[in-house]
Amino acid sequence: MANNALILHGGAPTAVINASLYGAVLELSAGKVDKILGARGGTGGVLREDFIDLQALSEKALRGLPFTPASAIGTSRDHLEQEDYEKIASILKKHDIRYLLVNGGNGSMDTCGKIVAAAGSDVRVVGIPKTIDNDIAVTDHAPGFGSAARYLAGTVAEVVADVRSLPIHVAVVEAMGRNAGWLCAAAALAADTGFGPDLIYCPEHPFSEEAFLSDVERLHKAQGGVVVVASEGLKKTDGTPIVEPIFSVGRSVYYGDVGAHLGNLVIQRLGIKARSEKPGICGRASMMFQSSVDREEAILCGREAAKAVLSGKSGVMVGLRRLESTPYAVEPVLIPVEEVMLHERTLPLSFLNEEKNGVSPSYLDWCRPLIGGPLPEFVKL
Amino acid sequence: MANNALILHGGAPTAVINASLYGAVLELSAGKVDKILGARGGTGGVLREDFIDLQALSEKALRGLPFTPASAIGTSRDHLEQEDYEKIASILKKHDIRYLLVNGGNGSMDTCGKIVAAAGSDVRVVGIPKTIDNDIAVTDHAPGFGSAARYLAGTVAEVVADVRSLPIHVAVVEAMGRNAGWLCAAAALAADTGFGPDLIYCPEHPFSEEAFLSDVERLHKAQGGVVVVASEGLKKTDGTPIVEPIFSVGRSVYYGDVGAHLGNLVIQRLGIKARSEKPGICGRASMMFQSSVDREEAILCGREAAKAVLSGKSGVMVGLRRLESTPYAVEPVLIPVEEVMLHERTLPLSFLNEEKNGVSPSYLDWCRPLIGGPLPEFVKL
Repeated sequence: MANNALILHGGAPTAVINASLYGAVLELSAGKVDKILGARGGTGGVLREDFIDLQALSEKALRGLPFTPASAIGTSRDHLEQEDYEKIASILKKHDIRYLLVNGGNGSMDTCGKIVAAAGSDVRVVGIPKTIDNDIAVTDHAPGFGSAARYLAGTVAEVVADVRSLPIHVAVVEAMGRNAGWLCAAAALAADTGFGPDLIYCPEHPFSEEAFLSDVERLHKAQGGVVVVASEGLKKTDGTPIVEPIFSVGRSVYYGDVGAHLGNLVIQRLGIKARSEKPGICGRASMMFQSSVDREEAILCGREAAKAVLSGKSGVMVGLRRLESTPYAVEPVLIPVEEVMLHERTLPLSFLNEEKNGVSPSYLDWCRPLIGGPLPEFVKL
Repeated sequence: MANNALILHGGAPTAVINASLYGAVLELSAGKVDKILGARGGTGGVLREDFIDLQALSEKALRGLPFTPASAIGTSRDHLEQEDYEKIASILKKHDIRYLLVNGGNGSMDTCGKIVAAAGSDVRVVGIPKTIDNDIAVTDHAPGFGSAARYLAGTVAEVVADVRSLPIHVAVVEAMGRNAGWLCAAAALAADTGFGPDLIYCPEHPFSEEAFLSDVERLHKAQGGVVVVASEGLKKTDGTPIVEPIFSVGRSVYYGDVGAHLGNLVIQRLGIKARSEKPGICGRASMMFQSSVDREEAILCGREAAKAVLSGKSGVMVGLRRLESTPYAVEPVLIPVEEVMLHERTLPLSFLNEEKNGVSPSYLDWCRPLIGGPLPEFVKL
């Protein structure tokens, strides 16, 4: 009977999900497995029995994976029912898949747990963490975050340079992360280049339009151009989004963009020119701003997950435990998926400044090592 | 009496405006001038007599200029009256400025002409072209465009990779260029990587929402995820913006974002998930996607402008004349500013495809050399 391994991706891509794939394939190749398969298009690929033979990759393709954005084997956000998990378990059995690696965020770790329950001891299942939002519990951080953070900080530094050189408007940069402000906060690292944003608003603290307008007005008066970084998930005190619903289709309600909303507010209430930038997907797919630390950690997590599954572990996710920030050191750990699934990890308020319009020095110390070295330096005259 | 030179920037920054500054400083340093000054903050800087001594720059700062985004000496969009031009002329005289280089777009070339008229033969004035929109007449293209084009094409390739790997939605990427589609069209070069956008809509052709929805529906049915690149300046047949005015302040009317509007249209009319990305300023300030060809041409234009002004030329702008596309070759030419000021150059309709939802092969041949070499390659499984 064959001894096959399958790698499955879930949820939104990051800049380093393929780096973890690379690490996992390397380690599985070194182990005693017959086939190494990838599910094309996430759980849907498993259900369709649509597998990619990852041993057939050319050396060039394999080595190119860590530098390839998006998910090279595809991914999905399918909502699965109990019968789907049972079908997945029987498909895994049918294809002699003894080892399953699931790369994803909170939703995928939940999938991990449910496959473990459905497949029993026939299949060993280990999770590889992945998120740009950094909302996975227990682990210090997850692969994908460092690169998204580097992108946001580096891009905001460039926007700040632009706005300071033509100081006629307020620019609001919208950051991804609907419930967690880890990524939004990372924009503060732009200050290391001398071109830091003026204001940062994370979703963990209720947003006050009055405080925001007063901050912007004061800064605009003092210096002209102002750069604001705002989370796409800013909420009022009652927990509802700060943007009004603009329309609904069926039971889904759609809201406007937070960045555009805040820009419009500045124009209408303060009479100051304003605009918004929303890099969105550009920020999680950028290879130029991929963090070398993030890439290496993604490879490490892929390798460690493969090692764990080959050694008989199951129902665990690889996590990163931080040993030190200076000099930066982490070690991989195995975390039971149930512990991970317990909660969505948000940014502690202690990582924000007192006014809640920026971050604390402790956040910068925590985040800086993850972006993989200093941002490019620019001339300042 | 001293023999001084002044460099002045106007309008929005590009990724290579500082490269032209570098070229101009190098060439002026080699010429017979006493001081080389930069106006801090554009024409406002001249009126405030706020000058930067560009000879005092360290070797490191000077060499760093071509790799620094935004305008290192600042820039402005001030609207000037006749009396301002006269004041500028007298300030130039007061500071013994015999040579003036004005770097900017159509508006700045107009400024050039008016300073020539106000200052008479006391001051020689030469323009350096700069625009990401590529809407300056007579020249084949202008510095700034190639880098913005590389950014858009490279970023769209990454967005396409992301959307194809998680094909659950339609993503609309909004491109800058309110009246000219040169930049928007450049997104088509993403196809060289194997990750090209599905639809491109430029502002030169009246936009039909029905044709757009039918294009999107067909592609979504066939392939799942769809990536659309849309100009921020899309217009209806009657020439008005496709987005409705959302509010007005005084006599200014504000419109919503085209990308967000088209995304919402897809959700409401087709019931398909959609989102929008709006890189905005990020796209003109990106050093990572700076085009080496664009940078070299920007330096060349700066040098040629300095040479021209030192040799007694005035009232002209440096332009680029294309000799060949394959192999790519251009030569600098001098163009009377009056010819430049005549019209805003838009994208010829022959550079669009028949359906007006993409570009023609001739556009690709025209644009490809400007982005400075192939885009990064990604693995495709």
